[in-house]
Amino acid sequence: MSDDTKINETMELRLNYDERGLIPVVVQDAEDSSLLMLAYANRRALEITKETGYATFWSRSKKRLWTKGRTSGDLLEMVDIRVDCDQDSLLYRVKKVGENVCHTKRKSCFYRRINTDGGLEFIK
Amino acid sequence: MSDDTKINETMELRLNYDERGLIPVVVQDAEDSSLLMLAYANRRALEITKETGYATFWSRSKKRLWTKGRTSGDLLEMVDIRVDCDQDSLLYRVKKVGENVCHTKRKSCFYRRINTDGGLEFIK
Repeated sequence: MSDDTKINETMELRLNYDERGLIPVVVQDAEDSSLLMLAYANRRALEITKETGYATFWSRSKKRLWTKGRTSGDLLEMVDIRVDCDQDSLLYRVKKVGENVCHTKRKSCFYRRINTDGGLEFIK
Repeated sequence: MSDDTKINETMELRLNYDERGLIPVVVQDAEDSSLLMLAYANRRALEITKETGYATFWSRSKKRLWTKGRTSGDLLEMVDIRVDCDQDSLLYRVKKVGENVCHTKRKSCFYRRINTDGGLEFIK
Protein backbone atom coordinates (compact mmCIF):
# COMPACT_ATOMS: atom_id res chain seq x y z
CA MET A 1 0.00 0.00 0.00
CA SER A 2 1.14 3.55 -0.66
CA ASP A 3 1.67 5.87 2.32
CA ASP A 4 -1.48 7.72 1.28
CA THR A 5 -3.54 4.53 1.32
CA LYS A 6 -2.06 3.57 4.67
CA ILE A 7 -3.01 6.78 6.42
CA ASN A 8 -6.46 6.74 4.76
CA GLU A 9 -7.30 3.19 5.79
CA THR A 10 -5.40 2.54 9.01
CA MET A 11 -7.21 1.81 12.26
CA GLU A 12 -4.34 3.42 14.16
CA LEU A 13 -4.63 7.00 15.36
CA ARG A 14 -1.58 8.73 13.85
CA LEU A 15 -2.54 12.38 13.94
CA ASN A 16 -0.60 14.76 11.78
CA TYR A 17 -0.05 17.79 14.03
CA ASP A 18 1.36 20.89 12.35
CA GLU A 19 4.74 22.50 13.12
CA ARG A 20 3.14 24.21 16.15
CA GLY A 21 1.92 20.86 17.50
CA LEU A 22 -1.69 21.80 16.66
CA ILE A 23 -4.50 20.22 14.68
CA PRO A 24 -7.67 22.08 13.58
CA VAL A 25 -10.90 20.89 15.17
CA VAL A 26 -14.31 21.43 13.59
CA VAL A 27 -17.08 21.42 16.19
CA GLN A 28 -20.54 20.24 15.13
CA ASP A 29 -23.78 19.94 17.09
CA ALA A 30 -24.56 16.21 17.05
CA GLU A 31 -28.27 16.92 17.54
CA ASP A 32 -29.07 19.34 14.70
CA SER A 33 -25.77 19.02 12.71
CA SER A 34 -25.13 22.76 12.82
CA LEU A 35 -21.54 23.93 12.56
CA LEU A 36 -20.59 25.61 15.81
CA MET A 37 -16.94 26.69 15.70
CA LEU A 38 -13.42 25.90 14.55
CA ALA A 39 -10.58 25.75 17.07
CA TYR A 40 -7.26 23.94 17.60
CA ALA A 41 -6.13 21.07 19.79
CA ASN A 42 -2.70 19.87 20.82
CA ARG A 43 -2.01 16.38 22.20
CA ARG A 44 -2.85 17.39 25.75
CA ALA A 45 -6.13 19.10 24.77
CA LEU A 46 -7.22 15.94 22.99
CA GLU A 47 -6.29 13.79 26.01
CA ILE A 48 -8.28 16.05 28.35
CA THR A 49 -11.23 15.99 25.95
CA LYS A 50 -11.22 12.19 25.98
CA GLU A 51 -10.69 11.94 29.74
CA THR A 52 -13.28 14.52 30.84
CA GLY A 53 -15.83 14.21 28.04
CA TYR A 54 -15.84 18.01 27.53
CA ALA A 55 -14.49 19.71 24.41
CA THR A 56 -11.06 21.15 25.20
CA PHE A 57 -8.72 23.11 22.93
CA TRP A 58 -5.44 24.99 22.83
CA SER A 59 -6.07 28.72 22.81
CA ARG A 60 -3.57 30.27 20.41
CA SER A 61 -4.25 33.79 21.70
CA LYS A 62 -4.08 32.95 25.41
CA LYS A 63 -1.47 30.20 24.92
CA ARG A 64 -3.15 27.82 27.31
CA LEU A 65 -5.51 24.86 27.44
CA TRP A 66 -9.11 25.94 27.21
CA THR A 67 -12.16 23.89 28.12
CA LYS A 68 -14.92 25.63 26.19
CA GLY A 69 -17.56 26.98 28.59
CA ARG A 70 -15.66 26.35 31.83
CA THR A 71 -16.19 30.04 32.69
CA SER A 72 -19.46 30.78 30.86
CA GLY A 73 -21.12 27.45 31.66
CA ASP A 74 -21.67 26.79 27.95
CA LEU A 75 -19.76 23.49 28.06
CA LEU A 76 -19.78 21.13 25.09
CA GLU A 77 -20.31 17.46 26.00
CA MET A 78 -18.51 15.09 23.68
CA VAL A 79 -20.54 12.62 21.61
CA ASP A 80 -17.67 11.36 19.47
CA ILE A 81 -14.42 12.43 17.84
CA ARG A 82 -13.92 11.85 14.12
CA VAL A 83 -10.71 12.00 12.12
CA ASP A 84 -10.34 12.88 8.45
CA CYS A 85 -8.73 10.80 5.69
CA ASP A 86 -5.18 12.11 6.06
CA GLN A 87 -5.46 12.54 9.84
CA ASP A 88 -4.72 16.26 9.85
CA SER A 89 -8.07 17.52 11.11
CA LEU A 90 -10.56 16.46 13.75
CA LEU A 91 -14.32 16.71 14.12
CA TYR A 92 -15.72 16.98 17.64
CA ARG A 93 -19.41 16.04 17.61
CA VAL A 94 -20.96 17.56 20.72
CA LYS A 95 -24.08 18.18 22.74
CA LYS A 96 -24.51 21.75 23.97
CA VAL A 97 -24.98 22.19 27.71
CA GLY A 98 -25.97 25.88 27.47
CA GLU A 99 -27.78 27.98 24.91
CA ASN A 100 -24.80 29.66 23.25
CA VAL A 101 -21.46 28.63 21.85
CA CYS A 102 -19.76 31.76 20.52
CA HIS A 103 -18.17 34.19 23.00
CA THR A 104 -20.39 36.85 21.36
CA LYS A 105 -23.40 35.04 22.91
CA ARG A 106 -24.59 33.42 19.72
CA LYS A 107 -25.47 29.80 18.93
CA SER A 108 -22.62 29.46 16.42
CA CYS A 109 -19.44 31.39 15.59
CA PHE A 110 -20.48 31.36 11.91
CA TYR A 111 -23.22 34.02 12.13
CA ARG A 112 -22.22 36.12 9.09
CA ARG A 113 -22.06 35.32 5.41
CA ILE A 114 -20.24 37.02 2.54
CA ASN A 115 -22.78 38.89 0.41
CA THR A 116 -22.70 39.67 -3.30
CA ASP A 117 -21.02 43.05 -2.66
CA GLY A 118 -18.10 41.29 -0.96
CA GLY A 119 -19.12 42.57 2.48
CA LEU A 120 -20.72 40.62 5.31
CA GLU A 121 -24.32 40.23 6.43
CA PHE A 122 -25.77 38.62 9.52
CA ILE A 123 -27.59 35.33 9.04
CA LYS A 124 -31.15 35.53 10.30
CA MET B 1 -15.49 49.39 20.70
CA SER B 2 -12.61 47.06 21.48
CA ASP B 3 -10.73 45.47 18.58
CA ASP B 4 -12.37 42.18 19.49
CA THR B 5 -15.88 43.69 19.30
CA LYS B 6 -15.00 45.40 16.02
CA ILE B 7 -13.92 42.21 14.27
CA ASN B 8 -16.90 40.31 15.73
CA GLU B 9 -19.51 42.84 14.62
CA THR B 10 -18.11 44.46 11.48
CA MET B 11 -19.86 44.12 8.13
CA GLU B 12 -16.47 44.40 6.42
CA LEU B 13 -14.67 41.28 5.26
CA ARG B 14 -11.27 41.50 6.97
CA LEU B 15 -10.03 37.94 6.90
CA ASN B 16 -7.22 37.00 9.19
CA TYR B 17 -4.97 34.82 7.02
CA ASP B 18 -2.15 32.98 8.82
CA GLU B 19 1.59 33.48 8.25
CA ARG B 20 1.36 31.22 5.18
CA GLY B 21 -1.44 33.37 3.72
CA LEU B 22 -3.97 30.61 4.38
CA ILE B 23 -7.29 30.33 6.18
CA PRO B 24 -8.95 27.02 7.13
CA VAL B 25 -12.22 26.25 5.36
CA VAL B 26 -14.84 23.89 6.76
CA VAL B 27 -17.03 22.42 4.01
CA GLN B 28 -20.60 21.47 4.87
CA ASP B 29 -23.35 19.96 2.73
CA ALA B 30 -26.08 22.63 2.67
CA GLU B 31 -28.74 19.99 2.00
CA ASP B 32 -28.21 17.48 4.83
CA SER B 33 -25.76 19.55 6.97
CA SER B 34 -23.14 16.79 6.97
CA LEU B 35 -19.54 17.80 7.44
CA LEU B 36 -17.63 16.97 4.27
CA MET B 37 -14.02 18.09 4.59
CA LEU B 38 -11.58 20.67 5.91
CA ALA B 39 -9.17 22.40 3.55
CA TYR B 40 -7.37 25.74 3.17
CA ALA B 41 -7.91 28.81 1.00
CA ASN B 42 -5.66 31.71 0.14
CA ARG B 43 -6.93 35.03 -1.27
CA ARG B 44 -6.89 33.77 -4.84
CA ALA B 45 -8.72 30.52 -4.01
CA LEU B 46 -11.46 32.53 -2.33
CA GLU B 47 -11.73 34.87 -5.34
CA ILE B 48 -12.01 31.93 -7.74
CA THR B 49 -14.63 30.30 -5.50
CA LYS B 50 -16.71 33.50 -5.61
CA GLU B 51 -16.22 34.05 -9.35
CA THR B 52 -16.88 30.50 -10.53
CA GLY B 53 -19.33 29.28 -7.86
CA TYR B 54 -17.25 26.12 -7.30
CA ALA B 55 -15.36 25.39 -4.09
CA THR B 56 -11.67 26.10 -4.67
CA PHE B 57 -8.77 25.72 -2.25
CA TRP B 58 -5.01 25.96 -1.94
CA SER B 59 -3.47 22.50 -1.89
CA ARG B 60 -0.66 22.55 0.68
CA SER B 61 0.78 19.25 -0.60
CA LYS B 62 0.66 20.11 -4.31
CA LYS B 63 1.30 23.84 -3.73
CA ARG B 64 -1.29 24.91 -6.24
CA LEU B 65 -4.88 26.10 -6.54
CA TRP B 66 -7.30 23.21 -6.49
CA THR B 67 -10.92 23.25 -7.60
CA LYS B 68 -12.36 20.24 -5.78
CA GLY B 69 -13.67 17.71 -8.31
CA ARG B 70 -12.27 19.32 -11.46
CA THR B 71 -10.62 15.98 -12.28
CA SER B 72 -13.04 13.52 -10.62
CA GLY B 73 -16.22 15.39 -11.57
CA ASP B 74 -17.23 15.59 -7.91
CA LEU B 75 -17.45 19.39 -7.94
CA LEU B 76 -18.93 21.30 -5.02
CA GLU B 77 -21.36 24.07 -6.02
CA MET B 78 -21.32 27.02 -3.64
CA VAL B 79 -24.47 27.91 -1.73
CA ASP B 80 -22.89 30.51 0.54
CA ILE B 81 -19.69 31.40 2.37
CA ARG B 82 -19.79 32.08 6.09
CA VAL B 83 -17.14 33.71 8.27
CA ASP B 84 -16.55 33.12 11.96
CA CYS B 85 -16.50 35.69 14.77
CA ASP B 86 -12.81 36.58 14.61
CA GLN B 87 -12.59 36.13 10.83
CA ASP B 88 -9.93 33.43 10.93
CA SER B 89 -11.95 30.56 9.51
CA LEU B 90 -14.47 30.11 6.71
CA LEU B 91 -17.43 27.83 6.15
CA TYR B 92 -18.26 26.88 2.57
CA ARG B 93 -21.85 25.61 2.38
CA VAL B 94 -22.14 23.54 -0.78
CA LYS B 95 -24.28 21.33 -2.94
CA LYS B 96 -22.60 18.15 -4.15
CA VAL B 97 -22.55 17.57 -7.91
CA GLY B 98 -21.35 13.96 -7.66
CA GLU B 99 -21.82 11.18 -5.17
CA ASN B 100 -18.50 11.39 -3.33
CA VAL B 101 -16.38 14.07 -1.76
CA CYS B 102 -13.31 12.37 -0.30
CA HIS B 103 -10.52 11.27 -2.67
CA THR B 104 -10.97 7.80 -1.09
CA LYS B 105 -14.39 7.67 -2.81
CA ARG B 106 -16.45 8.32 0.29
CA LYS B 107 -19.22 10.83 0.96
CA SER B 108 -17.16 12.65 3.62
CA CYS B 109 -13.51 12.77 4.64
CA PHE B 110 -14.59 12.17 8.27
CA TYR B 111 -15.39 8.44 7.94
CA ARG B 112 -13.55 7.20 11.05
CA ARG B 113 -14.05 7.89 14.74
CA ILE B 114 -11.75 7.43 17.73
CA ASN B 115 -12.94 4.44 19.73
CA THR B 116 -12.65 3.76 23.46
CA ASP B 117 -9.33 1.90 22.98
CA GLY B 118 -7.80 5.00 21.40
CA GLY B 119 -7.77 3.42 17.94
CA LEU B 120 -10.02 4.21 14.99
CA GLU B 121 -13.16 2.56 13.68
CA PHE B 122 -15.10 3.14 10.49
CA ILE B 123 -18.47 4.88 10.82
CA LYS B 124 -21.25 2.76 9.38
